[in-house]
Amino acid sequence: MNYLDNINSPQDLKKLSMEQLPELAAEIRRTLIDRISATGGHLGPNLGMVEATIALHYVFDSPKDKFVFDVSHQCYTHKILTGRKDGFTDPAHFGDYSGYTNPDESEHDLFMVGHTATSVSLATGLAKARDLNGGKENIVAIIGDGSMSGGEAFEGLNNAAVLNSNMIILFNDNEMSIAENFGGMYQNFAELRRMKGKAECNFFKSFGFDYYYVEDGNDTRQLVPVFQKVKDTTRPTVIHIHTLKGKGVEWAEKDKEGGHYAFPAGFDMAAFAGAESYDSITSEFLLKKMEKDPSVIAISPATALQTGLPMDFRKKAGRQYIDVGIAEEHAVAFASGLAKNGAKPVLLAISSFMQRTYDQLMQDLALNSSPATILVFLGNLSPGDATHCGIFDISMMSNIPGLVCLAPATKEEYLAMLDWSIEQTSVPVVIRVPSAVVSCENTAGLTEADFYRYQTVEKGSRVALMGLGNFFGLAGQVKELLKERTGIEATVINPRIYSALDHEMLESLKTDHRVVVTLEDGSVSGGFGEKIARFYGNSDMRVLNFGGEKMFTDRMPMEEQYARFHLTPELIVEDIQRCMEG
Amino acid sequence: MNYLDNINSPQDLKKLSMEQLPELAAEIRRTLIDRISATGGHLGPNLGMVEATIALHYVFDSPKDKFVFDVSHQCYTHKILTGRKDGFTDPAHFGDYSGYTNPDESEHDLFMVGHTATSVSLATGLAKARDLNGGKENIVAIIGDGSMSGGEAFEGLNNAAVLNSNMIILFNDNEMSIAENFGGMYQNFAELRRMKGKAECNFFKSFGFDYYYVEDGNDTRQLVPVFQKVKDTTRPTVIHIHTLKGKGVEWAEKDKEGGHYAFPAGFDMAAFAGAESYDSITSEFLLKKMEKDPSVIAISPATALQTGLPMDFRKKAGRQYIDVGIAEEHAVAFASGLAKNGAKPVLLAISSFMQRTYDQLMQDLALNSSPATILVFLGNLSPGDATHCGIFDISMMSNIPGLVCLAPATKEEYLAMLDWSIEQTSVPVVIRVPSAVVSCENTAGLTEADFYRYQTVEKGSRVALMGLGNFFGLAGQVKELLKERTGIEATVINPRIYSALDHEMLESLKTDHRVVVTLEDGSVSGGFGEKIARFYGNSDMRVLNFGGEKMFTDRMPMEEQYARFHLTPELIVEDIQRCMEG
Repeated sequence: MNYLDNINSPQDLKKLSMEQLPELAAEIRRTLIDRISATGGHLGPNLGMVEATIALHYVFDSPKDKFVFDVSHQCYTHKILTGRKDGFTDPAHFGDYSGYTNPDESEHDLFMVGHTATSVSLATGLAKARDLNGGKENIVAIIGDGSMSGGEAFEGLNNAAVLNSNMIILFNDNEMSIAENFGGMYQNFAELRRMKGKAECNFFKSFGFDYYYVEDGNDTRQLVPVFQKVKDTTRPTVIHIHTLKGKGVEWAEKDKEGGHYAFPAGFDMAAFAGAESYDSITSEFLLKKMEKDPSVIAISPATALQTGLPMDFRKKAGRQYIDVGIAEEHAVAFASGLAKNGAKPVLLAISSFMQRTYDQLMQDLALNSSPATILVFLGNLSPGDATHCGIFDISMMSNIPGLVCLAPATKEEYLAMLDWSIEQTSVPVVIRVPSAVVSCENTAGLTEADFYRYQTVEKGSRVALMGLGNFFGLAGQVKELLKERTGIEATVINPRIYSALDHEMLESLKTDHRVVVTLEDGSVSGGFGEKIARFYGNSDMRVLNFGGEKMFTDRMPMEEQYARFHLTPELIVEDIQRCMEG
Repeated sequence: MNYLDNINSPQDLKKLSMEQLPELAAEIRRTLIDRISATGGHLGPNLGMVEATIALHYVFDSPKDKFVFDVSHQCYTHKILTGRKDGFTDPAHFGDYSGYTNPDESEHDLFMVGHTATSVSLATGLAKARDLNGGKENIVAIIGDGSMSGGEAFEGLNNAAVLNSNMIILFNDNEMSIAENFGGMYQNFAELRRMKGKAECNFFKSFGFDYYYVEDGNDTRQLVPVFQKVKDTTRPTVIHIHTLKGKGVEWAEKDKEGGHYAFPAGFDMAAFAGAESYDSITSEFLLKKMEKDPSVIAISPATALQTGLPMDFRKKAGRQYIDVGIAEEHAVAFASGLAKNGAKPVLLAISSFMQRTYDQLMQDLALNSSPATILVFLGNLSPGDATHCGIFDISMMSNIPGLVCLAPATKEEYLAMLDWSIEQTSVPVVIRVPSAVVSCENTAGLTEADFYRYQTVEKGSRVALMGLGNFFGLAGQVKELLKERTGIEATVINPRIYSALDHEMLESLKTDHRVVVTLEDGSVSGGFGEKIARFYGNSDMRVLNFGGEKMFTDRMPMEEQYARFHLTPELIVEDIQRCMEG
């Protein structure tokens, strides 16, 4: 690597001539492709932003000047140029850095970011603080066209536009969200591209921003002069650059959605896809429903692939499928409106991203008893990034009045719940889609009344084990080990519903049980187990709550989490024994 | 009332001629002024929308055609025209109807609404359901310019614009939010007004909407023809009408913020303002801070008056005050950015509206440990509308990792916490501003360590009473009554922090206490008390949690709530006695 070898900081980059930048870009692009092939990662977003990131560091002076990357899944080149090259060139260090910006790694990273549409607001805060403190640095928010569909970005734009000082928004328009872009705004972006920035009606100018257009956002020769012109501006300014998502990898350029995130080479996609998953179970079930009933409609906030709705599904569903963009607030209110006018909406979303729509769940949906169905995917402890923890949805949703929150333990239970939820017309229903497919024919054909009652799967005494959803299997394992260790035949319960207490069943346990154990695949703080603890507060029943701690786990291996949170059968049995002796 | 007397439904309205509508409007306006003078209510928004609402019902056919009012604090004329006239003309029925749309009252109301920026998304859902089911009705969202600043409205616009069928947005531009409008978008609205809708750059057209402008939105002769033209359109359409907020009441036309909500005639504003309140305590404290330190900045999401920041404060604070519009998501991320770049942001917000920014609290703020201060007002049980319940913030915030949530019991504690929070540089802090000012000199001068520990105010035995924030006084009352009834000298605890457990103190109670009682002015579900119940789950300690139930209370008198939730000293003492005997 002719140039890259000598670059360990933005200062080194600045020593290059303009003519040398394209070759550096080529070197970095090769580096990214090699690294992502080996480890997996956000392929498309990073490849599209190589030149623009080089140009940013070439013109501006980070860390004095401050860059805020939206979602920050396009920050690899930024990491390479700011002292973290080894994480991309040296296999021994591939695991050293997260896939997102992280202030713990570098002074060049301002925020830990992984959700969409936050950069403009964060940057506006940085800029206003600079103004209050008499600073002079440039503040640059880097945001993609997909992220623009989130309401927070809009709120940020509306305020950034009146800041009356230096505030630069680098708008990376690659004509794609995670999936395709949807929404009226995108017609204006297309018009701007067509007119090379000179369209009469300009979304950004309507806010009052100064506006620049760069036709080839993958050409440093076009980028650098514009950045130089805008540097130290005293006006809120948008630089609209047109880039190619996935640039440099033919298949990713063509299949932009598939190339958004690449799995490592050698990853057995066929085996992965072959295993039965709730993705295919869900989409097949929905298609059957849709064929029979034109009022059934699936809604995705731009994460269709991640929630089991591949392109094939979307084509078959036709107008019974809608992608609203990265716009979870709208998605929930939209679902409420659909349900109120006689449609049967099913919103498929990811636990962590549902956090963006707490108020709409409460006001637009639950308060209005709109019979929409929400399927929550990836609600579980995971070894992933702190920005994507899936452990907070139980606490967020189960404490909202009027939301019926269900956690099926088996495939049959899941399908029975889904079927009931779609057809009923009185309440909004949340179903926490399990991680692994466990089948049990006996749990098919359940009816509404079943969903409001906890199920006693095995009747024992002294100890009752309540395993919610994903952790129902763990309850069974604990039962076995407890019997082996102590001879106790514990009761095993499948609670099914985590938004309500089954008072009758809980009361009945008092007669011949001493300890109730709750197990949930989420944060215990504000969760299911605490409600059980409250119920038994005025009795002699002892209660042990197991689940995740109230913390952001950042790429913490599952083994470590299990040990720390006492989520293995051994540790749980030890705690039960201690509790019974105490 | 020549015309109004004969109108009991939209059908009756349609019998009038165009020429008769202005007189009807005058009658309705007089009715509104009389009624609001007597009862209080949203004066400005309703007066501005009289003519447009008449025109809507004159042209469209509700309930077949469907109107969705944003916030719905402008729906009084709609209620008058749809069979609820008595609630505005007959003092015996003044209390019959809520100040917002409510499907329980009428088939002409689609949703219970009280939060901002939801109408476009809800209406888009109604429209899409109509299309799926082959319906033909018109769908009309009625949204003000203030509401447009909310991200949910933007997400809705972006999706409504591509619906490709009938979807009408009546944009009521009265040049005001609750307070003045702030943001770049408003410059475009001003330009559109100046150019009578013909500006080159048009925010709405940039999304692809058909667009109509009505210069005098308080003139039915201008409104009706445009509505007739747009009726049954097959395109997403915006009708931009320019109205006068507060029209017909001279002072409200001039003081639009003051006239937004009017108190009843005879309301002793002087006495109200004279009582010491946390409003003035907060603003005076902040001004002193600001004078000494230019990096202290107060942020309001359009509710400055409601959180104790009157115009006088705003003028004095100058650039150290910012109104971001009704944009809570931006407000929190903006505060995080400010804090990260060396400013000292204080966000003042209302409990119910903070729900709009759950994800930003978690991702933009807590995950990044940004040292911003958030003051939560109106976090308490209240006799108000279901849409404005202030009981969910404890559960929402206290289960987010990294947020330090404090509930002061006294004025001195509040000021000590506020001072510490502004000056510290390591954590985001939420302070739940108490409802009533209780003073206690002994609680002044607390330091950081104090805020992480529960305070034992009176040491007793057998029963420990934990009164959080507003309910600290209730704990004292319970102590007195319990002593009187049973002779027990209970321990009284001021927990101060509701996001963390004081393990040492809780552990120490085990030695000589049998029952721990928690009292919180919020929903118990997911709240503070349940965490205490979890802590004692594996011990012999009994725990009783008192607070609101997980439900939307809709204008439920406080007496009824106290009785239902067992929040009187008598009922609590009875429960304690029962628990000790059991």
